[in-house]
Amino acid sequence: MSVTVDRSQIENLVRQAIRQADAASSNGSMAPQSSSVAPLGWVDGKPNLRVSISARHCHLTDEHVEILFGAGSVLEPDKDLYQDGFYAAKQTVMVVGPRKRMLPNVRVLGPTRPFSQLELAFTDSISLGIDAPVRHSGKIEGTPGCVLVGPAGSVQLDQGVIRAARHVHMNDHDANFYGVANGDMMQLVVKSNDCSITFDDVLVRADKAAKLEVHIDTDEGNACNLDAASEVLLQKMPDACACGH
Amino acid sequence: MSVTVDRSQIENLVRQAIRQADAASSNGSMAPQSSSVAPLGWVDGKPNLRVSISARHCHLTDEHVEILFGAGSVLEPDKDLYQDGFYAAKQTVMVVGPRKRMLPNVRVLGPTRPFSQLELAFTDSISLGIDAPVRHSGKIEGTPGCVLVGPAGSVQLDQGVIRAARHVHMNDHDANFYGVANGDMMQLVVKSNDCSITFDDVLVRADKAAKLEVHIDTDEGNACNLDAASEVLLQKMPDACACGH
Repeated sequence: MSVTVDRSQIENLVRQAIRQADAASSNGSMAPQSSSVAPLGWVDGKPNLRVSISARHCHLTDEHVEILFGAGSVLEPDKDLYQDGFYAAKQTVMVVGPRKRMLPNVRVLGPTRPFSQLELAFTDSISLGIDAPVRHSGKIEGTPGCVLVGPAGSVQLDQGVIRAARHVHMNDHDANFYGVANGDMMQLVVKSNDCSITFDDVLVRADKAAKLEVHIDTDEGNACNLDAASEVLLQKMPDACACGH
Repeated sequence: MSVTVDRSQIENLVRQAIRQADAASSNGSMAPQSSSVAPLGWVDGKPNLRVSISARHCHLTDEHVEILFGAGSVLEPDKDLYQDGFYAAKQTVMVVGPRKRMLPNVRVLGPTRPFSQLELAFTDSISLGIDAPVRHSGKIEGTPGCVLVGPAGSVQLDQGVIRAARHVHMNDHDANFYGVANGDMMQLVVKSNDCSITFDDVLVRADKAAKLEVHIDTDEGNACNLDAASEVLLQKMPDACACGH
């Protein structure tokens, strides 16, 4: 299996080399290694893949922060996330679903956003009694709502409860390396003892300021025992081939 | 993608036809369709794949049933499982882990066994504070224990807490159809909107009395939103190919 993996990596490197040569022969502007500064997050001249498990969490508007935690309250950073500028806040909320089921301590992530949103794994949503659809962040039209309760008040969300679809943050250099563009789908292969998984449908979210990081949820991380994984591999969705993929 | 799937199914049918022809030309004893009775669980002349989610559950010895539920107690079938002779019992137990964490209602499955065993998804085992290893049923040497509590008493299990490794039950006709044998590993492909997954490491458990059924746990089922899956496909582990599998 490791031979196959190596071959895939080699193919990526070859594609990358071809792409750089093409760019250099046309206008040169796309050749990342013409810069003396290493691309964001790269180590030893190549992307440094990180796969992170997003536990259930919520995003809040400034207004909702004040309702939940008191007038004049702001989110207080507790722990920086891997993506620069993002953090887990000290604050948590209680989430209440239908039939009075609840999740007592759901972490708030900062900074605040133009809309509030609750991201759950399916296991959480089943516990809470909410049928959360798989959605990409921000695509909350028509999703179920819930009640958020903080020490100073509560907020009724009319929509915004989702299961966040798996995705990969990356910058333009990473996208170039893998031969993908914003909005493309990739595969994440996780090799783990007795429970290896290939995740399809990993959406590329390319942004100049991003570092290469796949986000999966707790169900996905637990399904492949990510913490004990021996290898992770990110790759373009392969063309149809004899193996059935 | 459906074209690829069809190709794979066609390949299976071709292999099956060759195998039957081989068997017929040698001694004829392996040709399942020489029998006038359809193989167990087959529909329209082929295996009828079922993928089931095993929620957390436990298996008990006769002795433990009596300790937990009272002298003379036996398991009372509540609901038949798909595999003939197996059932969810009316009885449940409370499971207590270290640091007094607990799961209040864990279903007992019957019939009783020569050993007691608790099967959890990783999400459950994290809730309970037990580091459950991925194991195939019965392989409990060196696994953690827990306390089971019933209405009449409690039992200290010194070992037996596992995350059941994914597996597929099948009979000899199914095995023949797929070209696999007991102990082989297969892949389960689940196509689901925005969260498709390929599960590797699906162990074949072939038994004359079994019906074709993949067992995955709640984390795995939730990771691919199995309930909403548009397609499931069971296949031999493919040979290494350009797609990285």
